Amino acid sequence: MSHIDLQNELPGIRGLMAFRPETARALNELAEILLRDDNNSLSRGERELIGTYVSYLNDCFFCQNVHGALAGHYLGCSLTEIDAIKKSLSTAKLSEKLQALLPIAASVQKGGKEVTPVLIENARLHGATDREIHDTVLIAAAFCMYNRYVDGLATWAPMDRQYYVNRAPDRAAEGYIDFDLQK
Amino acid sequence: MSHIDLQNELPGIRGLMAFRPETARALNELAEILLRDDNNSLSRGERELIGTYVSYLNDCFFCQNVHGALAGHYLGCSLTEIDAIKKSLSTAKLSEKLQALLPIAASVQKGGKEVTPVLIENARLHGATDREIHDTVLIAAAFCMYNRYVDGLATWAPMDRQYYVNRAPDRAAEGYIDFDLQK
Repeated sequence: MSHIDLQNELPGIRGLMAFRPETARALNELAEILLRDDNNSLSRGERELIGTYVSYLNDCFFCQNVHGALAGHYLGCSLTEIDAIKKSLSTAKLSEKLQALLPIAASVQKGGKEVTPVLIENARLHGATDREIHDTVLIAAAFCMYNRYVDGLATWAPMDRQYYVNRAPDRAAEGYIDFDLQK
Repeated sequence: MSHIDLQNELPGIRGLMAFRPETARALNELAEILLRDDNNSLSRGERELIGTYVSYLNDCFFCQNVHGALAGHYLGCSLTEIDAIKKSLSTAKLSEKLQALLPIAASVQKGGKEVTPVLIENARLHGATDREIHDTVLIAAAFCMYNRYVDGLATWAPMDRQYYVNRAPDRAAEGYIDFDLQK
């Protein structure tokens, strides 16, 4: 049961967004520009995977399953493959660039000052641009917010992980703005 | 020196916002609704203080000074008084309600699951509403993002703390939307 009376039965961040639509708007605009905007050299799947990985490190069940299912949808990976990536970033499914960006995201999860020049240099050596490094840091930082929001208010989440996989295609199609919270 | 070439000399989050104005817009809209919107029973000073306290716990020099100066401006507290509040939340300058909300913010800083029913119940006993508890959690979570963004890209910050105090009245007047980044 959530720490506050949300006056709705929606799971995870959806219940919080229905409770406080004024802040929901800004939170969704941030997700839309960071994770879905087409003017980005990181694919939607890569960006969703960065969010998934940080949510996994923060042990946020709802976020890692929502965004893991979206990453799987975009990247053509099964739930098992997404789980394997979380546990070991070295996989042929990911570009070397992404394998160098994910450790930067993991450092941001610990704290901003954990990001070292060595990690940045390694990402550059594997082809990452300044803008891609920037977006990796901001996506990781943003999920440190979303995860804390979802778990800090003790929201509930469906425990059947297939629920998230089944919903991913529709969620991918509708995006983070103007979607129907009740669906 | 920042981890990436920001192509400007602006300090802290301002340099990042000039580098990537598309994400800046959403980040500023979130700050505006959370920290400044008048439809809130927590005062602007109280909300800025929650952000200051989380930034202090995250050891983010730029954010704790920008928002500490704003909190001081709104609450009529000197820099010394703001510093004392960070170190000991028990002070006559703060309402009992805020003294009960700040430990919730401190828990969110550690991780969402650190927020306990006991902390929530204590805040309620001191008059906090569900909406105030919600906003405390989201402000704390948002500063976990802003702090990681600022430090994760190793931005520079003016070291003279009076700089932030001097700027606070103008920053308070202009708000987080449509301000001039160069000022």
